[in-house]
Amino acid sequence: MRPMELVVQKYGGSSVANADLIRNVAQRICQTSKGGAQVVAVVSAMGDTTEDLIALAKKVAGSPDVRELDLLLSTGELVSSTLLAMAIRSLGHEAISLSGFQAGIRTDSRYGKARISAVETERIKEEMDKGRLVVVAGFQGITEDMDVTTLGRGGSDTTAVALAAALEAQRCEIYTDVDGIYTADPQVVPGARKLERIDYEEMLELASYGAKMHPRSIELGSVYNVPIYVASSFSETSGTLIEKGIASAMEQRVKVTGIPYDRNVARITLRRVPDHPGIAAALFEPLSNEGISVDTIVQNSGSDKLTDLSFTLARTELERALEIVAPVAESVGAEEVTSDATLSKVSIIGSGMQHAPGYASRMFRALAENNINIEMITTSEIRITCIVPESVVHEATRVLHDAFELDQG
Amino acid sequence: MRPMELVVQKYGGSSVANADLIRNVAQRICQTSKGGAQVVAVVSAMGDTTEDLIALAKKVAGSPDVRELDLLLSTGELVSSTLLAMAIRSLGHEAISLSGFQAGIRTDSRYGKARISAVETERIKEEMDKGRLVVVAGFQGITEDMDVTTLGRGGSDTTAVALAAALEAQRCEIYTDVDGIYTADPQVVPGARKLERIDYEEMLELASYGAKMHPRSIELGSVYNVPIYVASSFSETSGTLIEKGIASAMEQRVKVTGIPYDRNVARITLRRVPDHPGIAAALFEPLSNEGISVDTIVQNSGSDKLTDLSFTLARTELERALEIVAPVAESVGAEEVTSDATLSKVSIIGSGMQHAPGYASRMFRALAENNINIEMITTSEIRITCIVPESVVHEATRVLHDAFELDQG
Repeated sequence: MRPMELVVQKYGGSSVANADLIRNVAQRICQTSKGGAQVVAVVSAMGDTTEDLIALAKKVAGSPDVRELDLLLSTGELVSSTLLAMAIRSLGHEAISLSGFQAGIRTDSRYGKARISAVETERIKEEMDKGRLVVVAGFQGITEDMDVTTLGRGGSDTTAVALAAALEAQRCEIYTDVDGIYTADPQVVPGARKLERIDYEEMLELASYGAKMHPRSIELGSVYNVPIYVASSFSETSGTLIEKGIASAMEQRVKVTGIPYDRNVARITLRRVPDHPGIAAALFEPLSNEGISVDTIVQNSGSDKLTDLSFTLARTELERALEIVAPVAESVGAEEVTSDATLSKVSIIGSGMQHAPGYASRMFRALAENNINIEMITTSEIRITCIVPESVVHEATRVLHDAFELDQG
Repeated sequence: MRPMELVVQKYGGSSVANADLIRNVAQRICQTSKGGAQVVAVVSAMGDTTEDLIALAKKVAGSPDVRELDLLLSTGELVSSTLLAMAIRSLGHEAISLSGFQAGIRTDSRYGKARISAVETERIKEEMDKGRLVVVAGFQGITEDMDVTTLGRGGSDTTAVALAAALEAQRCEIYTDVDGIYTADPQVVPGARKLERIDYEEMLELASYGAKMHPRSIELGSVYNVPIYVASSFSETSGTLIEKGIASAMEQRVKVTGIPYDRNVARITLRRVPDHPGIAAALFEPLSNEGISVDTIVQNSGSDKLTDLSFTLARTELERALEIVAPVAESVGAEEVTSDATLSKVSIIGSGMQHAPGYASRMFRALAENNINIEMITTSEIRITCIVPESVVHEATRVLHDAFELDQG
């Protein structure tokens, strides 16, 4: 006998934002189940619940304690998962909701951004063996000391992929309010095309460089080889499958997969720093200790043994970063610290790129022909990113989408 | 060294209904703590949260599954307890919130009306030893199978008294929107007087016969001899202490402690039933199986071997009870089933009563002199209850408050 197919389905907050939508999701799950697959569902909190709870916590306590905040926020997913289980039962199917704790999601104790350390699947398997559809509260887990944690950004997606890996599910389906992964933001590029499939590596770059998904769950899927299907819970249109790059060889003709952009970019520059070893460490260690990620770093040494050191970071962290950088700049003898909060980045992503020359020059030429100034450049094996003024980033995205003919599938 | 005093304080839903009120409660707790006592707080869900969640569940699923509903409802107390812990911390005091599970509240698995089977106090004591104020989510516990239960009506009070018993606290303080226990409803009887203290037994009768508290927590307090102090969280006025009847002997002069009334009363009558053994069992067993409590039962046998059988029950259960009674009435040969949903009961409560005659007659006389008709009578050792038409129950309460001179302290 062929073992029954097992699918983990994750539904985002906008997909369960009210009672009617929850009933709609329940119906979709029951349909999958009737189609012969076993389903484990993972849900986010309803609509803006998490933001509302954070606002309430701030009203009560100013800067709330992280351990308390996590226990508070975990209620959002408890509410949506129990409601979804009820809705499924009311459609005549056995179902049970499980909190992160009950579902065996064990984490470390970094509140607000906990990492999953293990998934103990006994209870879930027990419930599935009873013929029940299992609904798991996403975004949360429990520490060794039985304290509730939340997983931070991309948390519910991560719960879903981790469960799919632990349960050896055939695939993990992420249902949300977008209907797949596009070659570029359709709001900016009218000719943007939905991708039928994409490699983990390409998707990671897309996610890191502007697409709506958080790279964390893609990484996890890549490590455990869990195919991730991204689609809309509001329609029946087919979505995008993220999987191992088996199809790449067949598709080498099209090297560029997508053109993400990101407006959350700022730059800090230390001018005329005496150029000696240890400056980078002195600068980037304290930033890293404060959890501030630095992106592109450029150092231009002049002939006078003075150097300009620039780096980009998320614009939302600029203020905090400047506070940390100021004393360091003084101690290393920088003449001045400047910053620019009006930048963006635009990238081309494609897994064939490293083996085919000419992509970079094609990118730079297309931008130049449209008078778009490139401030900084950074590359990875499958990505080239240009930092450009924010005012032209939409235009740059359209220009590049055309230049690489992404509207032609 | 004298061991430090330990107090369990419970705050009801109206006391934590919004951010400002939560901060107010946090301040009260910190004050008690500064006064030198250790405090364990127990909170209900904010304001109408529980009702709102039930309404949402019904919208999603019609008649929601009880196991799911309990997990859903438990979030209400998680929210209020974490917020309260944050608020206390923001006042500079170490604090931690614990869910029912974390606080070691173990229950049976009767969802919606679970009974506490044990309180495992290790975690609470550990946190107290760290110098933390502990805030426990009321109303909830966890089964052997790690499923979340709720305790049903009076649940948070029960959590508080159970914790006070398990931790051997000096007393359990119940803070709510009323400032104590009165001789009668002050809204109905202008001369009603707040009691400084009352026996468990008297309070049990008061609670069962109309006072705002649920008898369950009083029972528990009585069994474990936990003094329960009822007061308002909105003022500094002193409340009422419920404790063992040590003072009774000194206060025998005043036998009647309070005059509760209850408008949630209905009566069902089976007319002209052939009088033979087994009728009562045939009637009351199916009602009991459905969880419907029957109160007063009166049977009048006539000379013709036919009997009228009347009983009262909560008006809210009348419809459901009539459905159960109808087939039974037919099978035992009753001529007719009638019901009356316009009744109420008024009681006098007093622990000296059983040893002093004349209370019943004084009660009946006072009602008769005011033309108040008594439909049925029922008594316990420390209570006499009259069923009267609902239209006159307020008047009856005032008449009895006067007759027993309860306005004179």
